[in-house]
This record gives sequence, structure tokens and C-alpha cells, in this order.
Amino acid sequence: MTAQPSAPSPELFFRSINAYQLTHALKGALDLDVFTAIAEGQTTAKALAESRQASERGMRILCDYLTATGFLTKANSNYGLTPDSAMFLDRRLPSFVGHSAEFLLSPTLAQSFDDVAAAVRKGGTVISEEGTMSHDNPVWVKFARAMQPLAFGMAQALTGAIKLDPDKKTKVLDIAASHGLYGLSFAQQYPNLEVVAVDWANVLEVGRENAARFGAADRWRALPGSAFDVDFGEGFDLALIPNFFHHFDPPTSEKLMQKIHAALGPGGRAVTVEFVPNEERTEPPHSVTFALVMLASTAHGDAYTFGEYEKMFAHAGFSRSELIQLPVAFEQVIVSYK
Amino acid sequence: MTAQPSAPSPELFFRSINAYQLTHALKGALDLDVFTAIAEGQTTAKALAESRQASERGMRILCDYLTATGFLTKANSNYGLTPDSAMFLDRRLPSFVGHSAEFLLSPTLAQSFDDVAAAVRKGGTVISEEGTMSHDNPVWVKFARAMQPLAFGMAQALTGAIKLDPDKKTKVLDIAASHGLYGLSFAQQYPNLEVVAVDWANVLEVGRENAARFGAADRWRALPGSAFDVDFGEGFDLALIPNFFHHFDPPTSEKLMQKIHAALGPGGRAVTVEFVPNEERTEPPHSVTFALVMLASTAHGDAYTFGEYEKMFAHAGFSRSELIQLPVAFEQVIVSYK
Repeated sequence: MTAQPSAPSPELFFRSINAYQLTHALKGALDLDVFTAIAEGQTTAKALAESRQASERGMRILCDYLTATGFLTKANSNYGLTPDSAMFLDRRLPSFVGHSAEFLLSPTLAQSFDDVAAAVRKGGTVISEEGTMSHDNPVWVKFARAMQPLAFGMAQALTGAIKLDPDKKTKVLDIAASHGLYGLSFAQQYPNLEVVAVDWANVLEVGRENAARFGAADRWRALPGSAFDVDFGEGFDLALIPNFFHHFDPPTSEKLMQKIHAALGPGGRAVTVEFVPNEERTEPPHSVTFALVMLASTAHGDAYTFGEYEKMFAHAGFSRSELIQLPVAFEQVIVSYK
Repeated sequence: MTAQPSAPSPELFFRSINAYQLTHALKGALDLDVFTAIAEGQTTAKALAESRQASERGMRILCDYLTATGFLTKANSNYGLTPDSAMFLDRRLPSFVGHSAEFLLSPTLAQSFDDVAAAVRKGGTVISEEGTMSHDNPVWVKFARAMQPLAFGMAQALTGAIKLDPDKKTKVLDIAASHGLYGLSFAQQYPNLEVVAVDWANVLEVGRENAARFGAADRWRALPGSAFDVDFGEGFDLALIPNFFHHFDPPTSEKLMQKIHAALGPGGRAVTVEFVPNEERTEPPHSVTFALVMLASTAHGDAYTFGEYEKMFAHAGFSRSELIQLPVAFEQVIVSYK
């Protein structure tokens, strides 16, 4: 829309109400593996259509859409990949993040957004009593497999930010370990480090595969069950809690953090990876908007501020907590000291 | 996401694959009429929750989401409307555009995006043989009612751009008139102007209501039926074709434009309102992306370039065509001279 910046415009409304089309166009492009085809040198609508058994007209319209929305470049009717698309949407690369659509657009999550007004009225998910937090919900196996590439960069950045003594035998407790990448990233960096990974048994199978892939199978132990119920053991140097607290209300997280506090040895640290908005909850965008995913898909989840976490963790016995913003990350990190 | 502008990032992918959440959040806000409540002075999550029989927690999370996505402001836990939201999302105002969601998110349109890959493979809609172009499809009644406020500004801008002789008796042919606002906007401006409006009979009932509302009932005549079949009559000074050609293939539009050419008197003009991308189809964004809506919901529709329209209209007998960009508009205008 061409508009004076000062004149009110319905442009944002129009673009936003149609935003679902962007999700589905991108999903269609992944289904057809268009980005990989372009990386392989099919750069015209005709060549792309031939390589994907699709119509040229359909391919041209889809690729123009992807160009207008920032995923492709176009010059002289030839499409190209942007640097982002070249790194993250080429299926041949380990950095390919397209599999995350299998979790992010899974029927469970998509359904939770069908009636946002109902979730706002109720103050929590309307898809079932506990939403995605029901015991052994298979959506978390999907999560573990689909979200690995997105988590990988974050896990690497975290390992760079949290320093450990490489000569000391170190024990790490990985809570809701999922694909296991957070703990395994530390195991890869520190040869004397052992990981105990807690999650549902079916989910931990994904972590076990990754432990083998990381060459750390002998230093990685699965502890299946609910983090609220299983016995962690004790003497841990580090507890990792990536993307877990946002599913619960503060008393529940406080209780778990007490249990973690007890499992840590002297000088132990708890490291929380989370979507942490500022205290007014206006920034950063991904952390603010993530709260709606929790409202829609869980009974009590939220994106808590640092002030809220600080209070919960102090109640749980930690002496102090600090907020860290990693250089490239959707999420924030809180380090809490025993 | 905090990132160096030069480092590749999965941020655009992540934001885009989740874009459907923006659609549903906005729909939820309209369902709860949050914007009107804020305009009426309910500016805290608590006050908004009370006025809308909703939970405070849910209302806070929704309004934070709307703040992060540009629809609201927030300071000291008080929400406010942006200038755009104040004008277009307050249900008490005639400029309220929220009803458009009833068309834009109608099951027919939403369903057409369920499998974009299938539409790309086929080269057209997979929802039915003709998609939204089937005879008397009730989605067009919904369109006529829901899209009026968005069309109103465009119709006013068009009336300002196309000059007529106010003293002369003028006949306007309004093709696929829908809500009738394009023809009626001219009727309102020119007291000697008469409109013949063509559309499905059920759709024209909406136009008839508007003709009465515009005080032009005696100068507005409904001509029900398919624009391809009905007899337009002759001697028209102006033919308006707003948002119609994009549903068809070029030969079909050419045939219709021939019929329009015959219905125009000497010196007559045909005015096409359309999403017209540039020849490379890279800009403007709304006109480029609109082609995907046509691919997904019609058998042969597209967003044609000016070059393509120029050719069709020349074939249909018009001496020349010119492209006009109205100052504030999602769409472009083509004026063709007999």
C-alpha cells in the first residue's frame, strides 16, 4: 500500500488478517521442496515446475509470493535464495529448519488457535483440560524430532556462554531434555561431563539417538518420567531447564525449582532457557507473542518476566539470578546460583 | 531476535510459519471487540476483562500480543489504540473494517489455502472445479456485506481521480458491482449520473440497500445475472470493472472487455480496479501476493501485469490504456479509452 506515513491506514489489519496465507504458502513451498530445487539450480518457474511435477503457472505464483515476502530474490524471471533461505531452507543441509513445521503446525497446536476468544474468556486452553501438558502427549516426540535444528544453534550459543572447568568431572541435569541437544552440546564441549536427561520415555528415545550421534552415549543417561515425580539424585554442577517453565503457573515452577535446588551440589547453577519479555511485556516480540501460544495450548502457561522468575527462584532457595541475552537467539537465558 | 544484520537467521522463517497465529489473534480480538472497549476507555487488562466477561490473564496476554504486533500501544500497563486501530477497528465508526474478516476468513477462502502445494501442482484451485467462481456462490453476498468499508475509501479515491462532466447526463455500467459502492460513489458525486449494476441477483440486494442509503435508488438499476451473459444495453460513458478480471484467464477477460467496448458510447472509458504487479511481479507486495489467493481459490485467476492487461484490452478494441496509482490504495487502476 502506498500511503503517507501520517495517514491512518487499514494496511496492517489487512496484512495481518490474511497472515494465515503466509503460513500455508511457506508450508506449500516446503512440501514441494522449492528452496532445495532453487539451490540445485532450478531457477525459473518452468524448471522448478518440471523438477517438482507441478504446473509452471502455480510455481510462478508461489515463487512470486515467496519473493514478495522475503524468502526469494527475483531478477529477469530467475529466482534465487536469500542468505537466510540458503542456510535454513535447503533440505540438504544440517541447518535446514523446515522440519519444525511438523511440530509448529501440528494439529494439536494449530487447533489451539481455532478460537482465541474462547481461550481469552477462559484464561487457558480450550482444547482439553491440560492441553499439550497431558502425560506422554505424543506432540513432544514430534517436537523433539522437528525442533532440533532450531535448538542446535541456541544450545551451541548457551554452551559458549556458560563456562565450566574442563578438568573437573561435571554432572549436568537436563530437565525436559527433549532431543537432548542442550545437555549434549555441553557433553561435546567437556569430555569429563555426564548428563542425566529427564523427559517422557518416548521422547527420550530421540535424545538417545542424538547422544550416540554426538559420541556421548556412555556419558548420557535417560531418566524417564515426569520431572515433578522422578528422583533426580544429587551433586549436580549444572541443571538445564530449556523451554519448560513457560508451561506452568508460578507455584508449580517454584516447587520444581526447589527440587532442582536440592539436586545441585555446592556452587551449582540452574540455567533456564526461556521466552522472557521485559517487565512491561512489550519486547522482544517473540517473547511477548509466545505467551499467546501458552494461553492457547496450556491450562496455566505464560511467558514470565525476569522479575517473576527472580521471585520464583528466590522462593525456591537460589541466592541470586541473572538475565543473559545471547548474541543470536529467539530466547533469553537466566542463570541462578545455589 | 537480536542478530547481526549480516548473519543468516531463521527469524523470518519462524515468524512466517507461525503467521497463522496473528490471523487468529486478531480474529479473537474482533470477536471480543477489544478495540472498541479500549476506545470506550477500558484500558487495563482488568477493566477489559470485566467489560468482555473474559479472564484478566487471557486479556492481558492477548493485548500484549496485539501490542507486539503493532495494533495497540502499552505504557504503565495501560493499553491504547494506534491511529490505524482507532480509525479502522472501533466498531462504532463507519470506517470499521473488522467485518471484512467474515469474508476474508470465510470457510471457502480459508479452505482454499489448506493445501497450497496441491494448488501449485494443479495450477489452480483444488477446492472444486470452479472454486469461488461457481454460479451464485453465496460467498459473494458475504463479500458484498463484509468488504464495504475497505472498498469505500478506494471508491472515493477513484471518484476523485476519474473526472466527468457534471452537467451532462451520464450512464455508468458497474460490472460485478457487489456492494455497489464504486458506481454509487460516482452517483453521489454527480446528480445527473445513472448506474446499471451487474452481479448475481442475491448479491445485488446488498447494492440495492446501499443505493437507498446513498439516496440514489432512483438512479441505480440492478441487472442480475452473469456479466458474460446479460445484455448490458449501450451508450454508456463509463464502465467500472472493480476486482473482477483477476478471477479469469486472459481470453475470458478479453471477451468480456469486447462486450464492454460495444456497450460504451463514443469517448467512453473502461475503468479497471485491480491488483496489478509490476512486469517482473516483484512489487507492490499486496498485488504480488494476491495472485496466490487466485491460484488457491479459482481455476484460472491471477494478478495480471499492466502489460498483460494492455494487450487484452487492445485485443478487445480499446485504443489505449493507462495505469494510475491512487494515493492511498491497496490496488491499482487502469483507464482504457474506446
